[in-house]
Amino acid sequence: MEYYEDLTVGDTTSFGTYDVTRDEIVSFAEQYDPQPFHTDADAAAASMFGGLVASGWHTAAMTMRLLVDNYLADSGAMGALGVDELRWPTPVEPGDVLSVRTEILDKDVWDDDRGRVASEITTTNDDGAVVLSMVAQVLWRRRG
Amino acid sequence: MEYYEDLTVGDTTSFGTYDVTRDEIVSFAEQYDPQPFHTDADAAAASMFGGLVASGWHTAAMTMRLLVDNYLADSGAMGALGVDELRWPTPVEPGDVLSVRTEILDKDVWDDDRGRVASEITTTNDDGAVVLSMVAQVLWRRRG
Repeated sequence: MEYYEDLTVGDTTSFGTYDVTRDEIVSFAEQYDPQPFHTDADAAAASMFGGLVASGWHTAAMTMRLLVDNYLADSGAMGALGVDELRWPTPVEPGDVLSVRTEILDKDVWDDDRGRVASEITTTNDDGAVVLSMVAQVLWRRRG
Repeated sequence: MEYYEDLTVGDTTSFGTYDVTRDEIVSFAEQYDPQPFHTDADAAAASMFGGLVASGWHTAAMTMRLLVDNYLADSGAMGALGVDELRWPTPVEPGDVLSVRTEILDKDVWDDDRGRVASEITTTNDDGAVVLSMVAQVLWRRRG
């Protein structure tokens, strides 16, 4: 179990992979973000994206799945306070394979039981293009 | 069709409702955020949340669905550049009914075809508690 005290500013980790399918892009978008460039290939071709692209919220959700499976599960992470500077510089397309890099930016004691840890999260596709970046503020359990 | 030129700084809109179910909270979390306080009622009771709560990314996705259905559909909105100051001050629980308020904070011309519009998005539950707030930067089509 990793606690607040075990995290060091400047530490980085990298992990993944997440295979993005057309079916999942359309399924997520039909439920949560039914804009034509996320649900309809023809409409997407005529949009500024030039083809079907994932909802930015879907990209965030896939990033979260990689974080939970590889970084947060069985850790002292207790929940997020919020996220800053969430950006989607390159759209996610069907067939992309995503991976994630984290870097701890800063940390401080929140209360007797918890510490706040700020991390830069960067998600890239298999061409190395950044598809999502954000700074996450997460509460971690303190040791003892 | 609403264009960039039709949006006025200070304008507000309010809309919703989104009925949050336990099944949907667990289903989203099992796919994208399988932390125990989102998927397992007993583990959630022992967490800092004291009971099952929705993933913050699920709250963002439900907010997006309300935005698309009530604000963005058939509009000149072309896609988001990013989001700042994303916060989840109150967790979303099963049975909550969510609604959304938007306020246009600022806007400027991006290029010949598009303008950038910054909006404060606030999602509340049926007790009036804020469950999500963020500032979204969205590109809108210019008239002509």
